[in-house]
Amino acid sequence: MEALKEKIRTDGVAIGKDIVKVDGFLNHQIDVKFLNEIGQEFARRFADVKIDRILTVEASGIAIAACTAPHFGYPPVVFAKKAAPNTMVEGFYEEEARSFTKGTVSKLRVSKRFLHPGEQVLILDDFLAYGEASQALVEIVRKAGAEVAGIGIVIEKGFQGGSDKLRARGCRVESLAVIEKIEDGQITFGGEDAGE
Amino acid sequence: MEALKEKIRTDGVAIGKDIVKVDGFLNHQIDVKFLNEIGQEFARRFADVKIDRILTVEASGIAIAACTAPHFGYPPVVFAKKAAPNTMVEGFYEEEARSFTKGTVSKLRVSKRFLHPGEQVLILDDFLAYGEASQALVEIVRKAGAEVAGIGIVIEKGFQGGSDKLRARGCRVESLAVIEKIEDGQITFGGEDAGE
Repeated sequence: MEALKEKIRTDGVAIGKDIVKVDGFLNHQIDVKFLNEIGQEFARRFADVKIDRILTVEASGIAIAACTAPHFGYPPVVFAKKAAPNTMVEGFYEEEARSFTKGTVSKLRVSKRFLHPGEQVLILDDFLAYGEASQALVEIVRKAGAEVAGIGIVIEKGFQGGSDKLRARGCRVESLAVIEKIEDGQITFGGEDAGE
Repeated sequence: MEALKEKIRTDGVAIGKDIVKVDGFLNHQIDVKFLNEIGQEFARRFADVKIDRILTVEASGIAIAACTAPHFGYPPVVFAKKAAPNTMVEGFYEEEARSFTKGTVSKLRVSKRFLHPGEQVLILDDFLAYGEASQALVEIVRKAGAEVAGIGIVIEKGFQGGSDKLRARGCRVESLAVIEKIEDGQITFGGEDAGE
């Protein structure tokens, strides 16, 4: 998605060889108008798939899912929680996921009330790095007896191997921008961007 | 907002005398179409105010802010973070806030890059209880030299006094549904709902 690459080039900050900071439009400040375009692009790429539900992770995935849902006819959105508040008393599906950025391990939890057998689930996330969070979501969907219709990623760090792991699990992955290299403050995009 | 009260009556779960669980449409599963109506209602109530920016808190405020921004002409949205990831290296405004539901104290942080002197800021949140989170956001806005144009709340628990505290600080508060009492699994709404 060329507009996204342009946005990353102008607003993104490359840190070291591993991190791209996009808190100017995605992770802290949110450009809702632009996320609406991102949602439209996900709908275009997954136009051939029936989507019953969108699943993402708090916090950065929520705005993406909220801006994408209208383009799929408003399916229910559910976000995995990283900690169990005392109002989550009933049963939930749980998987561990390491966060590359924070250097922590989280437990991702989704209430059993909000994932049902047979549902076609679109998983959305802001970043795909080593694929830890997405793999945890795939496991949660499958535990529920639902199916992963696809995985939509805004920014993939192609050099960290996450999409290969997800494809090895039989998942279709669509990344709107694939970064191949981060070096000397420069971000190089790769060609594995099926939609263009 | 009558549709919201109806949604809380049918989907909400009253727990004890203090908690209403609305994770079927607001806090875990998200009904984006309905949040769009909520955003429209905020725009109607604050139609007389110029809004330069929307400020909320992760995680539950994000979807509300994302669904409200289009109705104000897409101002930038920023959400306060509850922990500092290692990508938040530069200066930020910080205030402590107690979470009633989780029984914890969080540090709310907003990067100085995303709040500017003179901006008219609309603060949005899912719940208003004792007003701890909203008061922290008001302080953050004022530290930045910006102004609180208003505070929009989806569900206010009127019996916990948060809105009085905020009004005492000179803030205009608009709550779309005000709960006056939770008892025996029943939710009673109050009349302090200026928009109807």
